[in-house]
Amino acid sequence: MKFTFKYNKNHTGQITTAHGVIDTPAFMPVGTAATVKAMLPEAVAATGAQIILGNTYHLMLRPGAERIEKLGGLHKFMNWQGPILTDSGGYQVMSLSKLRKITENGVVFQSHLDGSKHELTPESSIDIQHKLGSTITMSFDECTPYPATWEEAKKSMEMSMRWAERSKKAFISRPGYALFGIVQGGVYADLRKASIEALTDIGFDGYAIGGLAVGEGQEIMFKVLDEIMPYMPENAPRYLMGVGKPGDIVGAVKRGVDMFDCVLPTRSGRNGQAFTSYGTVNLRNAKYADDPEALDPGTISEASKYSKAYLHHLVKSGEILASMLLTAHNLQYYQDLMKKLRQAA
Amino acid sequence: MKFTFKYNKNHTGQITTAHGVIDTPAFMPVGTAATVKAMLPEAVAATGAQIILGNTYHLMLRPGAERIEKLGGLHKFMNWQGPILTDSGGYQVMSLSKLRKITENGVVFQSHLDGSKHELTPESSIDIQHKLGSTITMSFDECTPYPATWEEAKKSMEMSMRWAERSKKAFISRPGYALFGIVQGGVYADLRKASIEALTDIGFDGYAIGGLAVGEGQEIMFKVLDEIMPYMPENAPRYLMGVGKPGDIVGAVKRGVDMFDCVLPTRSGRNGQAFTSYGTVNLRNAKYADDPEALDPGTISEASKYSKAYLHHLVKSGEILASMLLTAHNLQYYQDLMKKLRQAA
Repeated sequence: MKFTFKYNKNHTGQITTAHGVIDTPAFMPVGTAATVKAMLPEAVAATGAQIILGNTYHLMLRPGAERIEKLGGLHKFMNWQGPILTDSGGYQVMSLSKLRKITENGVVFQSHLDGSKHELTPESSIDIQHKLGSTITMSFDECTPYPATWEEAKKSMEMSMRWAERSKKAFISRPGYALFGIVQGGVYADLRKASIEALTDIGFDGYAIGGLAVGEGQEIMFKVLDEIMPYMPENAPRYLMGVGKPGDIVGAVKRGVDMFDCVLPTRSGRNGQAFTSYGTVNLRNAKYADDPEALDPGTISEASKYSKAYLHHLVKSGEILASMLLTAHNLQYYQDLMKKLRQAA
Repeated sequence: MKFTFKYNKNHTGQITTAHGVIDTPAFMPVGTAATVKAMLPEAVAATGAQIILGNTYHLMLRPGAERIEKLGGLHKFMNWQGPILTDSGGYQVMSLSKLRKITENGVVFQSHLDGSKHELTPESSIDIQHKLGSTITMSFDECTPYPATWEEAKKSMEMSMRWAERSKKAFISRPGYALFGIVQGGVYADLRKASIEALTDIGFDGYAIGGLAVGEGQEIMFKVLDEIMPYMPENAPRYLMGVGKPGDIVGAVKRGVDMFDCVLPTRSGRNGQAFTSYGTVNLRNAKYADDPEALDPGTISEASKYSKAYLHHLVKSGEILASMLLTAHNLQYYQDLMKKLRQAA
């Protein structure tokens, strides 16, 4: 089976992989440490999710890529039979680890768990993702910080392009599996276009946009997308990394993005926040203590069986069931949104 | 519909209540704060549980009995349609609250949550349980500490008997609902017999044995049961409170106990401990890090779909899914045990 992308020219498409088909635009729930937090994998699939994301950084530190490989790969380990995309670890090294040293070769860092020393290079990142058995492997890149000057963004992007080439060389191709390149260049359209050109010259199965949703705000993000999406190949999936709020996703789909991932629905759920058909609801708020109304008649979920008063009680009491119900609800909300976007096309 | 108990004289029976039938011997999962921690109520029912327990002490403090009453009662609040037994709060006041003052009238105490001052009396405990809509209400008693001298145990038991009479007077009878008395008397057979006599004179729908499993050990507990079970009425359910380990339950069923509750399967699950057909497994143990074997082929549960290596990883990573899988597994183990005990009869 070949990895293919059929784009319908109307902002919908189908990605075919060794582990199944993904209808686009698609939202990928984040399963950081080999679990979408507070969810059974069957429940994740039941929301309509067709692909999930795993984090190379977390998995290499715990339980370790070799261990997962010996146990039959990430799919078997976590009981998720659909496609899995793994990030390269580059972003988490910057946001989570301590005492980083970046060179042309890669990044040396200390684990946020126990301070142990590790190295990630394009070659080791691709090797780890291979051991995990990732359906979609991401190139190793440097996520350019925001704000960055044009010169800083150029230097960072150019190193990421050299790392992209090394990632491509290190990738062991298998039928139905894919390697994506990551466009960098900060908020500078000329750098982004140069990055797209460099990546398409190397040739990837999909193209991600990295280094957005890092603090620049929706307006600038949409401006960058407006400038660069016309240059992104249409015969390969276009993936906007780490995005985002429902409004971000709607705007990005209009601009031609096919794939998304974000911790927002899952993390918000654990923090007592629900995405509903009438807006965001912070269930920690005391005004819900006596509210007998169901959470959200507009979203079919287990949480919608309960009153806001009950959910408020669970959140205030720190009950695990709050995380379970609200995570599932929020993922359902996100998948319903993607379905509507696909149907509206 | 009347509350009835049909005892088959072979250690099995059926309790009929306003909220459904309970096959005995029965194990009641503990749903302290209006949730069996880390479980959807549908999943609790799917293990075979026919009745759950709620804690008056926790619910009166948060979210409050009046609030739950206004929201339609505990069954509706937490989406559990089967029978619910609530304890009287007496035990938790002793084990959790601060600055207690016990008088003939009742107990004044400070909340462990916010230090606020509260009072529990036989009348207020019964009133709270009425507001919750409990299927089975427990009399308010003092759980006699262990160890206690004969004189201490006698004094405490006699006050509990006066409180039992006040509980009976305060109880508002409804068809299919029940009030249980609680036998006290420490480890002293003569006091226990006097307590049984006092309670049967008052007349209850069921009789619980309190003040055991409080540190005296299995041998003494079984000795007390051997001495007192022949005196317990057979036309009403006999409930051994807070018990216990699987071996405790097996031994107590042999001695004529019909009902049990314990936090052990749920709390152990959250601590990474699994009850399995081959013994207790502490999944935190490093020896499971590379163990590809399924948790327990002898117990049909979601957890049994996963390797011990994966469950070890989840426990070590503090993942909510560990609590979810192991709680459900342990409750399944307990319900399977009860089913075997009913079938072996």
